[in-house]
Amino acid sequence: MTQPYKTLSRIYVPVENLSGGETIELSEGQHHYLRNVMRAETGTQLRIFNGRNGEWLAAIEELSKKKAVVTLLEKIGEQTASEDIWMLASPIKKEAFDFMVEKSAELGAVQFFPVICERTVVSRINRDRLQATANDAAEQCERLDIMQVSDLGDLEVLFESWSPSRKLIFCLERGEAPPLAAALQKLPPDTPLAILIGPEGGFTEVEIAFIRGQSFALPVSLGTRILKAETAAVAALAVAQSWAQKH
Amino acid sequence: MTQPYKTLSRIYVPVENLSGGETIELSEGQHHYLRNVMRAETGTQLRIFNGRNGEWLAAIEELSKKKAVVTLLEKIGEQTASEDIWMLASPIKKEAFDFMVEKSAELGAVQFFPVICERTVVSRINRDRLQATANDAAEQCERLDIMQVSDLGDLEVLFESWSPSRKLIFCLERGEAPPLAAALQKLPPDTPLAILIGPEGGFTEVEIAFIRGQSFALPVSLGTRILKAETAAVAALAVAQSWAQKH
Repeated sequence: MTQPYKTLSRIYVPVENLSGGETIELSEGQHHYLRNVMRAETGTQLRIFNGRNGEWLAAIEELSKKKAVVTLLEKIGEQTASEDIWMLASPIKKEAFDFMVEKSAELGAVQFFPVICERTVVSRINRDRLQATANDAAEQCERLDIMQVSDLGDLEVLFESWSPSRKLIFCLERGEAPPLAAALQKLPPDTPLAILIGPEGGFTEVEIAFIRGQSFALPVSLGTRILKAETAAVAALAVAQSWAQKH
Repeated sequence: MTQPYKTLSRIYVPVENLSGGETIELSEGQHHYLRNVMRAETGTQLRIFNGRNGEWLAAIEELSKKKAVVTLLEKIGEQTASEDIWMLASPIKKEAFDFMVEKSAELGAVQFFPVICERTVVSRINRDRLQATANDAAEQCERLDIMQVSDLGDLEVLFESWSPSRKLIFCLERGEAPPLAAALQKLPPDTPLAILIGPEGGFTEVEIAFIRGQSFALPVSLGTRILKAETAAVAALAVAQSWAQKH
């Protein structure tokens, strides 16, 4: 991507547009990180991205007790898009769900939809915190786009506006379904995908029938072992990414 | 596997042989778990496995303050073997390495070799603790074999007795190598595999040349994103399992 710059810190800024010469004030967390963790100084170079205008070389313009401001110098990488894969997952206990969001972003998912299932036991999520986790993961894994985390929603509502060309990989435990890799092999290259992971207790019979009934659903098995929800999410996403990148 | 028994607790016992009518004293941790967490009683049924003689239905014979003893009733599942995939990984910081071992066991690796690389910064591991983590994962994910965790070793030593039929998936960062899925596609079905994951700092040029020079090495890329070592391990293993199960 930008080999000569790879040692420079990489910072995501949620601004509309990036252009040369522009100055940007960084967030409180980034200010703290640069000043107290990295011990950066005025003039220190960084990489800046906003998820849509590529990667920019920047230099610290001001680093005071109060704030950090950077100036954009030049564009060093064109914008790229991750493979078109969404994650839909029931919230699970906090640490495991944070992990699932972080790894989904690291493995390149473009959207993350927390969805309520019948056996979901967690009734609230902190969307902003999960989005921050996704942003941090993007900074670290060098992706240029950002995984968007949605508010907690219902499968039914998502399905109402679902584009039938997007196949929903429906991960079943113990159920009878073909292995994920075999199911993927039958799809045309570049098929948009989504991966659905249920709560710890699995899907109910009613849910399974409802989801199987959708024209875009692709029931699959992740093997004979019973995976934790977060492991299933990472495994399914890794296999789907691997399939998408092969073409 | 054993659908009617799936709600019964599953316990691994490190004994040589299992046979009907036998009584087995459980470990201190299992005793505590059954007595204080599960509130089990004399007569409570369990599932017992030792990694080689299948799965057994058992009943608690004694559950006192001092110990837990079970009696094996009948065999309810034949022994199965996981796909022949090994993990070789540099130790990394404790929490991330524990995670890597747990997920490797959950995703069905049969051997786990912690290996010292040039940029490895962790000089000691607790093999027994890591083995216990692998055993716990086996209990939970319903596999019947146990992932064996080795002591910390050297790549050179492992390579001296390496069977050339076992392909070593050599995961490279930023390096030029084909995607993992494309590389796997060219292998004959049932090829024994091993996955090699380096330390956080990656492999040195000298190591890369040395490993690439092995006849059994298969350099691969896990995509354009820079994955954390533990994420790379889980992603590569999931893709390899998925390939192995497709045949």
